Amino acid sequence: MEEIQDLWPLLTAEERVESFSMLSRDDAEDFFQGLTSRGQAQIVLGCSPRERKLWMRLLAPDDAADVLQEVPEENRAELMDLLDVATQREVRALLAYAEDQAGGLMSPRFARVRPDLTVEEAVRYVRRQAQDRLETIYYVYVLDSTQKLQGVVSFRELLTAPADKLVCELMESDLVTVPEDMDQEHVAEAIAQHDILAVPVVDGEGRMKGIVTVDDVVDVVQSEATEDMHKIGGMEALDSPYLQTRFLPMIRKRAGWLSVLFLGEMFTTAAMSRYEEHVARAVVLAIFVPLIISSGGNSGSQASTLVIRAMALGQVKLRDWHRIVRRELLSGFALGGILALVGIARVVLWDMLFQTYGEATPFLAATVAVSLVGVVMWGTVSGAMLPFILRAFGFDPASASAPFVATLVDVAGVMIYFNAAGIFLSGTLL
Amino acid sequence: MEEIQDLWPLLTAEERVESFSMLSRDDAEDFFQGLTSRGQAQIVLGCSPRERKLWMRLLAPDDAADVLQEVPEENRAELMDLLDVATQREVRALLAYAEDQAGGLMSPRFARVRPDLTVEEAVRYVRRQAQDRLETIYYVYVLDSTQKLQGVVSFRELLTAPADKLVCELMESDLVTVPEDMDQEHVAEAIAQHDILAVPVVDGEGRMKGIVTVDDVVDVVQSEATEDMHKIGGMEALDSPYLQTRFLPMIRKRAGWLSVLFLGEMFTTAAMSRYEEHVARAVVLAIFVPLIISSGGNSGSQASTLVIRAMALGQVKLRDWHRIVRRELLSGFALGGILALVGIARVVLWDMLFQTYGEATPFLAATVAVSLVGVVMWGTVSGAMLPFILRAFGFDPASASAPFVATLVDVAGVMIYFNAAGIFLSGTLL
Repeated sequence: MEEIQDLWPLLTAEERVESFSMLSRDDAEDFFQGLTSRGQAQIVLGCSPRERKLWMRLLAPDDAADVLQEVPEENRAELMDLLDVATQREVRALLAYAEDQAGGLMSPRFARVRPDLTVEEAVRYVRRQAQDRLETIYYVYVLDSTQKLQGVVSFRELLTAPADKLVCELMESDLVTVPEDMDQEHVAEAIAQHDILAVPVVDGEGRMKGIVTVDDVVDVVQSEATEDMHKIGGMEALDSPYLQTRFLPMIRKRAGWLSVLFLGEMFTTAAMSRYEEHVARAVVLAIFVPLIISSGGNSGSQASTLVIRAMALGQVKLRDWHRIVRRELLSGFALGGILALVGIARVVLWDMLFQTYGEATPFLAATVAVSLVGVVMWGTVSGAMLPFILRAFGFDPASASAPFVATLVDVAGVMIYFNAAGIFLSGTLL
Repeated sequence: MEEIQDLWPLLTAEERVESFSMLSRDDAEDFFQGLTSRGQAQIVLGCSPRERKLWMRLLAPDDAADVLQEVPEENRAELMDLLDVATQREVRALLAYAEDQAGGLMSPRFARVRPDLTVEEAVRYVRRQAQDRLETIYYVYVLDSTQKLQGVVSFRELLTAPADKLVCELMESDLVTVPEDMDQEHVAEAIAQHDILAVPVVDGEGRMKGIVTVDDVVDVVQSEATEDMHKIGGMEALDSPYLQTRFLPMIRKRAGWLSVLFLGEMFTTAAMSRYEEHVARAVVLAIFVPLIISSGGNSGSQASTLVIRAMALGQVKLRDWHRIVRRELLSGFALGGILALVGIARVVLWDMLFQTYGEATPFLAATVAVSLVGVVMWGTVSGAMLPFILRAFGFDPASASAPFVATLVDVAGVMIYFNAAGIFLSGTLL
């Protein structure tokens, strides 16, 4: 089984079904439960009709709904029919939600009691519910006769409370809930922030529809982070693990941004063309271009990554922008200053060693130093602000990728540098 | 309470203690439990000695251990004395582990039974244990008289099984465990992969020491992703949220890599100096430099991000390197080809519009196209391999940041480009 787990990502759909069929019954069940919805769908589609029913019925309603979303349209009805009638109803309700909303993530199988039960009655009632494979018995939700959520009590509290106390005396009525259409990222945040094991999902009228448990959230947290990282790396996020993504879809997700960045970089080319005469007169200027503009890109990449991640974790909100501008202006000044010192050392050292720049040395050093401070400040501020701008216009802030910021900063870098050169070097090199 | 939660990141330690003291008892408890260890430490240190005891005793042993690790050395013994003797013993055991190992993450408060108990006895026994604030009653672990882990049974199963069955007949003995010194990242992987709510931690002899629950893991997954993202963005990972990190430590974490990258970029400058004569003869060549080298950097950043994330999720292992080289060689060829077409269009179009390049046009187009394919292939392959190399030498693969890869690729980019120019343009521009 270990072996199959290791090889799994490398196998084709047919090989997967084949090696899966060689597992013992017990191992197969464990393995099946641990697969992604996509993997489960491949197994279900690949096996015999008799087996198919068996596997579909092993799935909890929320997992079954996910599998149905993975299979081709034409197989959906057939697989749905394999489920028992009660589960079919639950699955149909779940399919009405978008996959990445609280409603699409939740399980309708939670433990519920009425507020006027005694502790003893409640324990007995929950034990009876536990026989239908509840998602968790850790939390017991208190609903009134209209399914409105009144409060929550932990099963542990029920077990240790006096038998004749009423549930409503025991329950916590001030509880965290999430609406059905909340984005899964925010559901994950709510669970992580309040350190709870499950959060109830309620509709507009306060009726409880299901629970999202923390184990569903681990997957969400992980895949949201992956998505953001891919975007920060300068491409569209892949839908499946790298080695399992087919070649053409992957090229498509990478080529798009790469072409956009390439076109963007043409502005840098255009900007440089404007200073062609500078370059013709002082070739040495061209040589420092990569050094200067890449420093702006690097500092911008740091700033945008920091802000994107802080936004994703809810640590930075849109209204914080002015605090961050101030912070990054200062950071840019400090970081640019450090690089400027290194840059001056480089110019002076080269001149001492190779007598390269002659009497222009101090002016060249000044050009490099001043442009570095300017470019790095521009990099940190625009890198930090780009995620805000994207978010304010409804785009994903993670699209402010390192390469994107670098490209934006390059144009400005060229202009800052050649203008500084124009000021400091006219009369000597220019 | 909502308000304090929102403002929290912006408050100083004193302001935090003050606003915390204004909360009602109930709210304060909720709020305290939801804080990070650092926040809890600030509150505990800030409040009166009587209150201090109260808050320390509210903490579960694993949380108390984390708080003790956050406070200055000299306060540790005093705070430890506030705990009851049993908890002190547990906390001391936990402090012996590194914070980021399974042992440092686990709670010693799990539900345990002997294998020869009947179901009825087991339920009664677990209910009694539940009164001491167990971490979870969801899983009940079956230990023999030497504390060796024999199996696990879910509390739900106990509740629904016949009262006179023995625990050992019911338990699952083939279960996932993690060793005490396992890195927290791998613990998180184990829990996520097997979709379990808690994993038992065992020592070298198979004795059970504690459990790590899935809610601890959400924090781990999130902070590991943050760390990787900061590194991918080209800096050292910050220890605390962006807005809470003080200015100087932040500058230090960013300036280090920025300076390294700056020094790295000097190789590009040196490489360009070698081609100074090319530039002097054909200034137009200099103008395309940013376009060409940034394409290499961008494609490299995509490849390294993909590989770093796939490694962190355990989807790619060291031994997969040759499959990935092959894949990225092909990707680089395809992506470089696409950019080459755009590049040719740019050169030809400019010549048609502005008669810029004259008879050198086809040769310049060939130079740009061939260098783009070469640079992008070099970018994808070296971007994909750098994380492998770092990991093979024991470094964190996430240090293969977008800016780092871009800097490495820049040197090669300059060389590829000017050599291509030497071949295609000698006789016309050169």
